[in-house]
Amino acid sequence: MKNQITNALSDFFFEYETPRQVLVRNRRVGVVCRIIQLGVLAYIIGWVFIYEKGYQSTDVAVSSVYTKMKGVGYTSINGTERVWDVADYVFPSQGDASFVVMTNYIITEGQKMGKCPELHGKHNCSSNADCEGGSFKRQMTGVCVDETKTCQVLAWCPVEDDLVIPDPPMLMSAENYTLFIKNSVTFPLFGVSRSNLVEGIDAGYISKCLYHPEDAPLCPIFRLGDIVKLSGFNFETIATVGGAIGIVVDWTCNFDVSVKHCKPKYTFHGLYGNPAETDKARASVGYNFRYAKHYMEDRYQKRTLMKVFGIRFDIIVQSLARKFDIIPTLTAIGSGVGIFGVATVVCDLVLLYLLPKRAFYKNMKFKYTDTHAQDPDSEACSTETEASKK
Amino acid sequence: MKNQITNALSDFFFEYETPRQVLVRNRRVGVVCRIIQLGVLAYIIGWVFIYEKGYQSTDVAVSSVYTKMKGVGYTSINGTERVWDVADYVFPSQGDASFVVMTNYIITEGQKMGKCPELHGKHNCSSNADCEGGSFKRQMTGVCVDETKTCQVLAWCPVEDDLVIPDPPMLMSAENYTLFIKNSVTFPLFGVSRSNLVEGIDAGYISKCLYHPEDAPLCPIFRLGDIVKLSGFNFETIATVGGAIGIVVDWTCNFDVSVKHCKPKYTFHGLYGNPAETDKARASVGYNFRYAKHYMEDRYQKRTLMKVFGIRFDIIVQSLARKFDIIPTLTAIGSGVGIFGVATVVCDLVLLYLLPKRAFYKNMKFKYTDTHAQDPDSEACSTETEASKK
Amino acid sequence: MKNQITNALSDFFFEYETPRQVLVRNRRVGVVCRIIQLGVLAYIIGWVFIYEKGYQSTDVAVSSVYTKMKGVGYTSINGTERVWDVADYVFPSQGDASFVVMTNYIITEGQKMGKCPELHGKHNCSSNADCEGGSFKRQMTGVCVDETKTCQVLAWCPVEDDLVIPDPPMLMSAENYTLFIKNSVTFPLFGVSRSNLVEGIDAGYISKCLYHPEDAPLCPIFRLGDIVKLSGFNFETIATVGGAIGIVVDWTCNFDVSVKHCKPKYTFHGLYGNPAETDKARASVGYNFRYAKHYMEDRYQKRTLMKVFGIRFDIIVQSLARKFDIIPTLTAIGSGVGIFGVATVVCDLVLLYLLPKRAFYKNMKFKYTDTHAQDPDSEACSTETEASKK
Repeated sequence: MKNQITNALSDFFFEYETPRQVLVRNRRVGVVCRIIQLGVLAYIIGWVFIYEKGYQSTDVAVSSVYTKMKGVGYTSINGTERVWDVADYVFPSQGDASFVVMTNYIITEGQKMGKCPELHGKHNCSSNADCEGGSFKRQMTGVCVDETKTCQVLAWCPVEDDLVIPDPPMLMSAENYTLFIKNSVTFPLFGVSRSNLVEGIDAGYISKCLYHPEDAPLCPIFRLGDIVKLSGFNFETIATVGGAIGIVVDWTCNFDVSVKHCKPKYTFHGLYGNPAETDKARASVGYNFRYAKHYMEDRYQKRTLMKVFGIRFDIIVQSLARKFDIIPTLTAIGSGVGIFGVATVVCDLVLLYLLPKRAFYKNMKFKYTDTHAQDPDSEACSTETEASKK
Repeated sequence: MKNQITNALSDFFFEYETPRQVLVRNRRVGVVCRIIQLGVLAYIIGWVFIYEKGYQSTDVAVSSVYTKMKGVGYTSINGTERVWDVADYVFPSQGDASFVVMTNYIITEGQKMGKCPELHGKHNCSSNADCEGGSFKRQMTGVCVDETKTCQVLAWCPVEDDLVIPDPPMLMSAENYTLFIKNSVTFPLFGVSRSNLVEGIDAGYISKCLYHPEDAPLCPIFRLGDIVKLSGFNFETIATVGGAIGIVVDWTCNFDVSVKHCKPKYTFHGLYGNPAETDKARASVGYNFRYAKHYMEDRYQKRTLMKVFGIRFDIIVQSLARKFDIIPTLTAIGSGVGIFGVATVVCDLVLLYLLPKRAFYKNMKFKYTDTHAQDPDSEACSTETEASKK
Repeated sequence: MKNQITNALSDFFFEYETPRQVLVRNRRVGVVCRIIQLGVLAYIIGWVFIYEKGYQSTDVAVSSVYTKMKGVGYTSINGTERVWDVADYVFPSQGDASFVVMTNYIITEGQKMGKCPELHGKHNCSSNADCEGGSFKRQMTGVCVDETKTCQVLAWCPVEDDLVIPDPPMLMSAENYTLFIKNSVTFPLFGVSRSNLVEGIDAGYISKCLYHPEDAPLCPIFRLGDIVKLSGFNFETIATVGGAIGIVVDWTCNFDVSVKHCKPKYTFHGLYGNPAETDKARASVGYNFRYAKHYMEDRYQKRTLMKVFGIRFDIIVQSLARKFDIIPTLTAIGSGVGIFGVATVVCDLVLLYLLPKRAFYKNMKFKYTDTHAQDPDSEACSTETEASKK
């Protein structure tokens, strides 16, 4: 018994099977077959490996973004000069990846809780009876104010008048503000961390550079006017009604070469309603929000309400790193061998079903066992030959 | 020499190899084998290609979200009426993807820096000796206040009394607020950008629609009460103690059909502590934070502290786009051919080891070379035949 | 006709093809071939399946994070004692995944809009002529102030003096603040939701635990000093000039085992400028932003400007879940079979081109058709034999 197993094992190790093949010497079939095989080979090497880099595995980064605005705005309204610094025009102030730079505003000063008539045009009335009902937008008191012919509401008074948006925008100087972006990415699968302050982008360079698509594509300091122009907007338009711009930081990296070549690429585009699109998409252009500064005056709580129109910037980090990996490589090779097999199947179909001498080739390729009664003679020779081995 | 290479090349191009095969005419093995092969074929075509869409590559979107609340709240405390507008109840105000809507609050007005006794129940004492030690929570002065029998602390005074949470919540009217979501997604691999204001969702429609799971599944305007109900919470409960709700915008898209069919799907669920789970999970239900409004009164800095209870909404964008790609298609076909080969191996095992006539089939399938001394006779015929070719 | 199809079908179902093979009994080739085949098998089973878990598909989570700080800071400046509570030192206040804890500050109180000389060192001048020109940073009035020898600017006056950063930092006590993180993740592909308050981390445990890498790795409450130390910073340094720290919550889960084993892992590292890196990277260390509190005094708008130095925390959720999936399993098997085929090709190359008896093996393996005129004799036997079948 033990001997038998040893024999079987040694048989197994000292033998090996290789398929017997017919070498078909037919020009037409040969050429067709070789062309298909070369095509498959070209696809696997050229497309899968070289073009699509199928020998690499991919990873997406986790990232963190910090932003800092610089610049001072200036307004002069009715002779009152005012400057606006970072603490005044950036929301929120702490340097998030998504923030709003105020470019225009409607200010309503000295609001206090009370009862006052609505704006002309909203809730017009001729008598108190028109001012009932469950409108959720405002808390009506049921009184129609004679002078304005509008309903009285319980609200922060006086109510905000936002019918006319200041044009030109109050803070056109926002065009010259600069934005500094710090971005740090980590590819967990490959254990690589990078910052957008790559090699060569040091403190000295940062202190004097300004981003330009061709001349300074790695400078992390951006002029607002440039960003707006590169994303296809007109600055005055977007500054007046507000808008949203995505700043895409693209990290497409190949870690088979030195990690130094892994550098960010900045692109800019409008969000929520591209200017190149139709009116339908523009339905939602414009960006504004309301913001209140509260204070006490004469022991009474008051607030300054600001309807802020501004440019919202979203720093969107997009990443795709690739690195050689044995698994996708061998999967690609393995399935490539499979497709190679398909080439042979196609050639066989031509050989066995289309060629005039198909019957001859069929006989060359196949050997029949005698268990099927249909054509005993055809198998006589081979069966005899093989049987004699026993 | 040159001639030789030309010959070899022409040989290579005008020949082709195809494996010789035995056509086993055995009903049992044939049926077993065909069933296995059909199973493999059904799996590859039905499962991999049709069901799992294995011929497509996938991509995840980068996205940007902007939100806007609408609605006015109303409170009447001790006869003092107040309305709360967007600038009062949304944190932060600028329309982030993650924000809090205040639904309840504990207000502590007129706090100023000073020394005052702690709340009853916290840091009880009978003498100054009880008020020593290094508690990090409060800055103790080492004095036990006789009237309250609590330690004196250096703090914003008077200290906040948050032992009792107002119930019912102060701002039940929050149920009728509406939330407008703008979401823009970009699939970088396929170069497709979409907005949740898809075809047909124009300014006219938005001005009058309200989201409903069946009737208006694409309307981007949501009533807060509906969101809370759809995520399985009771509005009064969540409004009282606060809670967190995720609004998932699901972009599952197939770019092999028209991009118009790529539409968002909104779902809602509780975060951090599902109401359907056990007490253990609920350990962390409730959402609140403290927020201060600073002001000057009589040249003295004061603040109004608000403990805000509210519903935190997180707009979570989830995306998966698919599109035909030649690489996964051919990988699937290639590995399918490989699995087809496994079917033949299984049938061969049956044929060569289980059938009664296995010895016969073995002879049909295999040809032995004579280098192995074990059974020289069996190979005589074939060796002769083959040798004669030379 | 119908009969013919039935016959063809029954033929197809009751037959099956299996390749004819040569069993080469050659020790050298056999051993080489078996070793290659075993290597391939070991790679597929050991590497692809066991090590890389190639039978699983992967998914990345969508997540939501809520944070809450606790602790009170204390400062005593020129005898004026002050405490700083959460509402004072966390920006923003509502518990975002990214927030700043103030640890140091430069305060400029009572600023009002007006004209005042610049700080010494900035815009020095000897006459009004030096104060012209288009500097965007400040709005100059064109006047050189005699006393300070600096240009006059229109600004919030007095201008902030941030030349000297307080050292030691004002709020060293921040070291003892605690941070509570609630994190909820959902793996959409597998339909699994998890919270970082996993089994065993209940309200009772949370009330008294503190994160420690070994002793309490699942406690979601972190001491700020510990976080800073674990991320490799010195607390006093980072507290003085500010810095950014990423708190990575790593969800690496295997859903083939019980979902209970899917637990978060917390790691900490510096962002934007690793302390272990060179000066170049450190170019961008430090974190600060300006923040203003507005108030009215004597009917005049004033503000308190704070230049906040602090630690910015980014909670970064990193996730990778794996689960058995039939598609990658069969793709791995299928392409493995393909690679197996490569092993045979390699052995064949050895057999047919390197061995001394290669001509003999070539004859065993190949059968030639007679359509090629080059060597008619060599094919005589086989052609005759095969032809006789017809």
